Amino acid sequence: MIQVDQALHIIQENSFKMRAVKLKVNKALGFVLAETVFSPINMPPFRQSAMDGYAFVQGEDEYYKVIGGIQAGSHSDPHLQENEAIRIFTGAYVPNHADTVVMQEHVKREEDLITIEKMPQKGANIRAKGEQVEKGALVLEKDTVLSPAAIGYLACLGIIDVLVYQQPKVAILVTGSELIEPGKKLKKGKIFESNSVMLQAALISIGIRKTKVFRVKDKLKSTKKAIKKLLSNFDVILISGGISVGDYDFVKEALVKNDVEELFYKINQKPGKPLFFGKKGEKLVFALPGNPASSLTSFYVYVLPALKKRMGFEEIHQTEILRKSNATIQNPNGKTLFLKGLYDGTHVTVLESQSSAMLNTFAIANCLVVVPYDTTQIRKNQFVRLLPLN
Amino acid sequence: MIQVDQALHIIQENSFKMRAVKLKVNKALGFVLAETVFSPINMPPFRQSAMDGYAFVQGEDEYYKVIGGIQAGSHSDPHLQENEAIRIFTGAYVPNHADTVVMQEHVKREEDLITIEKMPQKGANIRAKGEQVEKGALVLEKDTVLSPAAIGYLACLGIIDVLVYQQPKVAILVTGSELIEPGKKLKKGKIFESNSVMLQAALISIGIRKTKVFRVKDKLKSTKKAIKKLLSNFDVILISGGISVGDYDFVKEALVKNDVEELFYKINQKPGKPLFFGKKGEKLVFALPGNPASSLTSFYVYVLPALKKRMGFEEIHQTEILRKSNATIQNPNGKTLFLKGLYDGTHVTVLESQSSAMLNTFAIANCLVVVPYDTTQIRKNQFVRLLPLN
Repeated sequence: MIQVDQALHIIQENSFKMRAVKLKVNKALGFVLAETVFSPINMPPFRQSAMDGYAFVQGEDEYYKVIGGIQAGSHSDPHLQENEAIRIFTGAYVPNHADTVVMQEHVKREEDLITIEKMPQKGANIRAKGEQVEKGALVLEKDTVLSPAAIGYLACLGIIDVLVYQQPKVAILVTGSELIEPGKKLKKGKIFESNSVMLQAALISIGIRKTKVFRVKDKLKSTKKAIKKLLSNFDVILISGGISVGDYDFVKEALVKNDVEELFYKINQKPGKPLFFGKKGEKLVFALPGNPASSLTSFYVYVLPALKKRMGFEEIHQTEILRKSNATIQNPNGKTLFLKGLYDGTHVTVLESQSSAMLNTFAIANCLVVVPYDTTQIRKNQFVRLLPLN
Repeated sequence: MIQVDQALHIIQENSFKMRAVKLKVNKALGFVLAETVFSPINMPPFRQSAMDGYAFVQGEDEYYKVIGGIQAGSHSDPHLQENEAIRIFTGAYVPNHADTVVMQEHVKREEDLITIEKMPQKGANIRAKGEQVEKGALVLEKDTVLSPAAIGYLACLGIIDVLVYQQPKVAILVTGSELIEPGKKLKKGKIFESNSVMLQAALISIGIRKTKVFRVKDKLKSTKKAIKKLLSNFDVILISGGISVGDYDFVKEALVKNDVEELFYKINQKPGKPLFFGKKGEKLVFALPGNPASSLTSFYVYVLPALKKRMGFEEIHQTEILRKSNATIQNPNGKTLFLKGLYDGTHVTVLESQSSAMLNTFAIANCLVVVPYDTTQIRKNQFVRLLPLN
């Protein structure tokens, strides 16, 4: 049995980035760049007016004759003489010979004549060619996570494809003869199977949509066969249940028979002690406890960082935050506790009903409160670490 | 011209929740419950073993004869006599006559006989019927946001449909004759159109996938016609560009002609001053500045709360956090500033290049630093408010 920190370290060391693939920029939200991107163009591609106003060559005079107009998108390039100005709009091409744009609010216009009432500095209100980024210059570094702003930035440079780390395909394998599908009739001794839909939702919440659910009977042969198939078709396998020491728990044996290397099994924590992590090549296997709250806790604490590593993230651990505890928390058994909690700007309350079989408090929690194994008590108003749940 | 807080108040007052629709639980992640949910079953539905071990009737003796086994999911209900025990597994049905389960680690077994080495309390390791929730009892309150845990909780009760607030259909209408699609050849005077892909990404990042992009020429007639069509088919309309005071900006006139009621136009802020917000019935219209950084800032500060209100969220404003500024920030012009920044656990750095036309810093920012209009200076190491981006 290992401690939480050791388990997280083992995950960090044994999870590898997926291969790089080309993706359309408009499909790349949340992906991580697998290349450094340089600009194919100058942006702006030409000297651009930053205002609605008038472009002119700055001279001695305050009076100018308006000889035409340039709408944004127009490609006209009139030659301006002394004392001539041209009506211009935000984003429009500034004629070669103009050196300044005055905003319309600072101009009095009478017919074709304008009087500049507040003379701007020479060069004012013109965005230089390549001001945002020059052709060939760095746009975004490798390993940047593509946010809406980053997507917009790439698009405004005319870039339509980017190299990103592929999304892992994730299989969820559900074991347990006591489980029946929600919507069917509940028979004596059975309960509804909810871990698969819960884990799929958790995967979607981090942007992973390539998931598939499989079910297997609590028999060694079928479990072994199912794991074999999943290992060849998926990048990460989440097995739900069947990993404790009961006579009918075949998962561990089936993993061994499939040459899945055990990296750890059992963590000194509550909930989620019987957690298995292994690998075969670059494929990762988590066998999660069958109890729903244990399963989801294990997902947030261990599966999430492993997936983020595979997705190419440099920062795979969620940022812990500190809050004052609203009550004393006891931890007499020397295990690291992950407790469902509700936090606000200053404090956190540990919710009642922390049973690993129950989701009722998890459903309204907004964080997991972390009590380390070597902390026997957290006093009221003492700071405690927590993992926010989005 | 109004202040930021007034604008946010007007949005709060004029945005209404969408109508309620029935949705499959497995599609409901991130939706908001439009009904209070009560449990259709007891959960657990029967007395359930919380351990792998042995069920028995507690008596005087420490020796028991094992007369069989109950796997999880089995429906057998053997009648236990005194000094009889039954092998049982986590999640399994505890026979009617048993009153205690001992975990296997506390038992020595020889053939059919077990010796209980550490006698548990009467009733130990049995989850009572309805312990998590009783039939008819409250499961989740109206207005709960459905997290992965909440989805799992509903599923474990066999619930397959829930009533949630519908997702708004969002149209993005792009104006601007200077814009051409990324991937096409860039002509003189033109720039690549990036706001639509950026705004779609921002919408997806909050779970809204029902979006569609439309383009219109900078002409009053076509703009008017496009807005009319969108008002009848979408719940929220985001118009990109064409809202400033240039001669070619027809959007405002086209909105008036379509009987869109103006709720505000222009906010005392930088970037994003020329922002329009209006409504027609429950349909909302935002006309966003065409400059990409202004557009995205307006999205995060104003469109996002309006969408969250429509999606049914009770808490529509993002929680602001406080960090110490790494440098002095000047605000001489009496406008509220939204500055692209990078924050960590304690400090925030305002990034260089805050031009409203540029996305280069927005692409790597993780927050917007908020400097109120009536704060002329924030000193180094003074606390400043910020809006985290994701």
